[in-house]
Amino acid sequence: MVYFGSDYLAGAHPEVLERLVETNLECLSGYGTDKYCDLAKEKIKQAVGVPEAEVEFIAGGTQTNAVVVSTMLRDHEGVIAAKTGHIAAHEAGSIEYTGHKVIEVPQENGKLSAKDVKAFCEAFYGDENHDHMVFPGMVYISHPTEYGTLYTKKELTDISAVCREYKMPLFMDGARLAYGLMSRGTDVTLQDIAKLCDVFYIGGTKAGALCGEAVVFMRGCRPAHFLTSVKRRGALLAKGRLLGVQFDALFTDGLYFEIGKYAIDMAERIKEIFKSRGFKFFLDSPTNQQFIVLENGFMEKIKDRVSYGFWEKYDDTHTVVRFATSWSTTEEDLKELETVLDEALRA
Amino acid sequence: MVYFGSDYLAGAHPEVLERLVETNLECLSGYGTDKYCDLAKEKIKQAVGVPEAEVEFIAGGTQTNAVVVSTMLRDHEGVIAAKTGHIAAHEAGSIEYTGHKVIEVPQENGKLSAKDVKAFCEAFYGDENHDHMVFPGMVYISHPTEYGTLYTKKELTDISAVCREYKMPLFMDGARLAYGLMSRGTDVTLQDIAKLCDVFYIGGTKAGALCGEAVVFMRGCRPAHFLTSVKRRGALLAKGRLLGVQFDALFTDGLYFEIGKYAIDMAERIKEIFKSRGFKFFLDSPTNQQFIVLENGFMEKIKDRVSYGFWEKYDDTHTVVRFATSWSTTEEDLKELETVLDEALRA
Amino acid sequence: MVYFGSDYLAGAHPEVLERLVETNLECLSGYGTDKYCDLAKEKIKQAVGVPEAEVEFIAGGTQTNAVVVSTMLRDHEGVIAAKTGHIAAHEAGSIEYTGHKVIEVPQENGKLSAKDVKAFCEAFYGDENHDHMVFPGMVYISHPTEYGTLYTKKELTDISAVCREYKMPLFMDGARLAYGLMSRGTDVTLQDIAKLCDVFYIGGTKAGALCGEAVVFMRGCRPAHFLTSVKRRGALLAKGRLLGVQFDALFTDGLYFEIGKYAIDMAERIKEIFKSRGFKFFLDSPTNQQFIVLENGFMEKIKDRVSYGFWEKYDDTHTVVRFATSWSTTEEDLKELETVLDEALRA
Amino acid sequence: MVYFGSDYLAGAHPEVLERLVETNLECLSGYGTDKYCDLAKEKIKQAVGVPEAEVEFIAGGTQTNAVVVSTMLRDHEGVIAAKTGHIAAHEAGSIEYTGHKVIEVPQENGKLSAKDVKAFCEAFYGDENHDHMVFPGMVYISHPTEYGTLYTKKELTDISAVCREYKMPLFMDGARLAYGLMSRGTDVTLQDIAKLCDVFYIGGTKAGALCGEAVVFMRGCRPAHFLTSVKRRGALLAKGRLLGVQFDALFTDGLYFEIGKYAIDMAERIKEIFKSRGFKFFLDSPTNQQFIVLENGFMEKIKDRVSYGFWEKYDDTHTVVRFATSWSTTEEDLKELETVLDEALRA
Repeated sequence: MVYFGSDYLAGAHPEVLERLVETNLECLSGYGTDKYCDLAKEKIKQAVGVPEAEVEFIAGGTQTNAVVVSTMLRDHEGVIAAKTGHIAAHEAGSIEYTGHKVIEVPQENGKLSAKDVKAFCEAFYGDENHDHMVFPGMVYISHPTEYGTLYTKKELTDISAVCREYKMPLFMDGARLAYGLMSRGTDVTLQDIAKLCDVFYIGGTKAGALCGEAVVFMRGCRPAHFLTSVKRRGALLAKGRLLGVQFDALFTDGLYFEIGKYAIDMAERIKEIFKSRGFKFFLDSPTNQQFIVLENGFMEKIKDRVSYGFWEKYDDTHTVVRFATSWSTTEEDLKELETVLDEALRA
Repeated sequence: MVYFGSDYLAGAHPEVLERLVETNLECLSGYGTDKYCDLAKEKIKQAVGVPEAEVEFIAGGTQTNAVVVSTMLRDHEGVIAAKTGHIAAHEAGSIEYTGHKVIEVPQENGKLSAKDVKAFCEAFYGDENHDHMVFPGMVYISHPTEYGTLYTKKELTDISAVCREYKMPLFMDGARLAYGLMSRGTDVTLQDIAKLCDVFYIGGTKAGALCGEAVVFMRGCRPAHFLTSVKRRGALLAKGRLLGVQFDALFTDGLYFEIGKYAIDMAERIKEIFKSRGFKFFLDSPTNQQFIVLENGFMEKIKDRVSYGFWEKYDDTHTVVRFATSWSTTEEDLKELETVLDEALRA
Repeated sequence: MVYFGSDYLAGAHPEVLERLVETNLECLSGYGTDKYCDLAKEKIKQAVGVPEAEVEFIAGGTQTNAVVVSTMLRDHEGVIAAKTGHIAAHEAGSIEYTGHKVIEVPQENGKLSAKDVKAFCEAFYGDENHDHMVFPGMVYISHPTEYGTLYTKKELTDISAVCREYKMPLFMDGARLAYGLMSRGTDVTLQDIAKLCDVFYIGGTKAGALCGEAVVFMRGCRPAHFLTSVKRRGALLAKGRLLGVQFDALFTDGLYFEIGKYAIDMAERIKEIFKSRGFKFFLDSPTNQQFIVLENGFMEKIKDRVSYGFWEKYDDTHTVVRFATSWSTTEEDLKELETVLDEALRA
Repeated sequence: MVYFGSDYLAGAHPEVLERLVETNLECLSGYGTDKYCDLAKEKIKQAVGVPEAEVEFIAGGTQTNAVVVSTMLRDHEGVIAAKTGHIAAHEAGSIEYTGHKVIEVPQENGKLSAKDVKAFCEAFYGDENHDHMVFPGMVYISHPTEYGTLYTKKELTDISAVCREYKMPLFMDGARLAYGLMSRGTDVTLQDIAKLCDVFYIGGTKAGALCGEAVVFMRGCRPAHFLTSVKRRGALLAKGRLLGVQFDALFTDGLYFEIGKYAIDMAERIKEIFKSRGFKFFLDSPTNQQFIVLENGFMEKIKDRVSYGFWEKYDDTHTVVRFATSWSTTEEDLKELETVLDEALRA
């Protein structure tokens, strides 16, 4: 079996794991107050290029989204997101669990547009009854999106401008940020993100860590008493070192970016493999997730030899499936994929 | 000024108020345990035709929706509603405040269809990742809808069947049920509703009471320890008599239905007034709310003489406005409306 | 049967009811935006003596407590209260329902002391691990307390000083404030309360209204977008006039204070009735609630002729019961009480 | 510096870490569906001696408590705990964040008694107004407690009996269960716990894991759709293997018990070290946490050479501090402790 189902199938990137092993016997203070957390924060701030940014580590993505959204929204506010946004569709209602509405706005290929966000806000404030409605209090975007697509710098700048006009913080879910940053042809840098977003996170779980996301708060927008709020939500790890050591490793000598680049290279190879064999792509993804439309019978044929991710039904006879790469994807994996496809096509 | 802005502009229907006055000096036990609450419950059960139904009184509509939805949903569930449903759009996120998602499903003129609800459920359970999503745990409909439209018996039967297939209780928001039941040409009776819905409420606030909604739970679906759950949500009135006496009055000698019928008659007259003058209707409403598309300049002209409800922007030069009737609408009101319209049309 | 079980057994004070009747046919805008709400707010601000205070009406006491506490606390905070405080003991966990802890601090006869509150805060901030604990973010007191007792001006001043030292708003639950203000010998005025508290409410339900509490926010502490937050909690009445008209009546010509004074006079008479017959008082209450320790057999004897409130078990053979007065208590009630007691004592 | 501040200062036990390294490159399905989770569950059920028990892994202790309590309580219920219980005192209000009250009951040395729990329940159900109060719906105990103390089998049996009488599940927080089970002289086994409790967790974080707690649900009491409920609370790790592999290691060849035993042996040595030097113990703890009363000046003297945990102020001149042992405590640590104490005593 060869595995392409997701980018979190293997454990930690070997260099990350090695740092956990090396530091294992050190006695360190708990709850994120250890020196590795401090080191990792410094390195991230350096990568981001903003010394006064504030970095916090949280164990998982859904948790991070819920913590950030619920601590930053005010009582009467909800968060704007694409209907396909992870918080809207695939987090089991974890935002609503905190008491706040996810306000769904139209999307295209997983992306919001400045135009649609602005139109929503204009309609909202133009409605005489808007005091009886949930106020838009934040905009959530994912980059890459759930469909692997990316915002351009222009698009991001425009959304950011609308957010500032309406005084809504812009929050970027960067669960797969490594792949967004290293995508060929993207014009969006980590520094751009820091400039245009108010808060974002740099995903670890899906980019070489066992777990962990690094939230970056810009321009003083970290909520007061954040540690207590995190604890209150059950999201404070006792051994905070687990996150600190891993992010220290990821941001040493550019490992995080290397992981991203490697997976992108592998994804481009997969793209070529499918393209050259005439497969249909659900959309054009420039990142590590490729969405292919497979005929159901074909899916059956390969399913015992290749693991892929179910995405959605395409039509009665076809399904959209995901092939994802990561640091753990190998040359052998690609070769095996080719073999399996060719044999199935011939069969 | 003549008032058509909504159906809750005047106080209580005179007969309701009279009962409050008559019973005012009686000493009655609190929290809904008084004899008038008991009487009112009996009369409602009789009207509904189901002796084993369970009736509970709650002060307001948004509160009723939040109490019913949040006590009946299970932990992992959300409630399906039209995007235009009151709980989705105009209750300031009160369902989400209880921790649950409102799952928006397509609508037409404010109505859900059995087909769309079924399609949603099929897609949900057909998605291999649905354990990471909010389960559909209830269906919310309003009857009349927020656009004044009504379900037919056939439509309601079909939705009910889908709900039963997927084991989701069907909840009808009857804030304006009086007008739905007495609409000319509707084929849906209170008994049908009791048969097809699992829980519904008979709205008082918008049909002659100062406040109060009567929730009817069918077939044993009232949550255990309901009084405590209501109190926990701050929704238990100390002087429960206020609700009991009013509903006792409303369900004595068919007053509730009379109120509905009167307002429908008045609404039909209003319809005629606008129709005969060539105004455009936003949609065809068979109940006490009529939605008219007015040219913005025309709106300006009449706004100091007629109060109407802002509904939504129609286009850059037109607006949808609501004209609602109630027990308090008078012949003089209609005449004045005609005068105002005619003068404005001439001007 | 003669009724002393509580102060919310009868309907509205006749003058309050009369105002509801008089204004019933007027068409008024909804959600608290009508002229009677405005008038009532003005009159209350005048009574309070602070023109820039902000007044809001909410239907019930538990609801008011939940709305005020949950909109004013910050994410990491809880509210300090006596273990016997209404929010701690008798509101079915409605504060916790909003996500916040009620921090119980020792009490005496229902009262907190500045000393205990200060000791708690000192211990809290002196604990090196307090970031892992719920921060004290507000102090809740009731005046009169659940035991009918009152704070002196000195006690209130001291608690207020501690609150200011620790930057915690002081919130007074005035469900029975009428009786506190008109108690013989109290040295606390409404003006004192406005000076010493940051937010308090003037109870209507237990002082002559059918329902309704008037929250007074001092010195700009009303939360932003309060109406939306109230709606979000299901606590916004459509016919806000119901509250406005009643409070307008209560604060016209000093009716609220008269109601308080009358009930106090009646309570003093009850006190005398029990005292002269040698009954034991659970504690010395200067307000409209009197707590008497009755032998269980004696309770049985009178229970079909006098209604009282169960309070708590005293010991295996005695029970604490409450006798409360209100505007609806009559001379005949007192006489009947004497008769019943005397006959039972003789039997 | 020698470290005794807590039992979560070092990383993972070497054997646990080794398993993470060994399995790191394997591709495994996410969210706890991998084979190591399955293996670990089987081994835990075997250790517990109940094949039909259900085991679930969650990353941290506060999170586990919040997930278990909030998914098992019904709407109108709260959880009984000691005022010193971790959920009552040191989890930043995470239970209240889920909407439920922690009902504080008297404790002694961190322990509840069957008598006090029963007395509370009797008073609760004996109170005629209990429908207006939070129902006791679960009993939370920690074993060892926050003070290192243990329940005897008799005490646990009695509490369990009260719980069953009142139909409240008994939940044991076993964050440090390893040390409770291996304490010298305890008569409580893992099998006893499985018999007497309805749900409990076997703590990993404080007993050799990097993170992770194993919740064991007995007799079918695991809430339906638990995975979705866990996800909804942000508590579902994508790489569930991180927990599965560690617990698989901990329950292979009795490692978990060895870790417990070793720390107990070390704690007994520490006890002896302090006892022989005449130090005062705050209480007699039979587990891996020892609470010593230190004179403040003495604390100052040693604080740069020994790390301990601040517990609480004892009096104006003394403080209670915690010395905890774990698998990572060494002979050298003990020797150094002796040296530091002796030098400080001489100084």
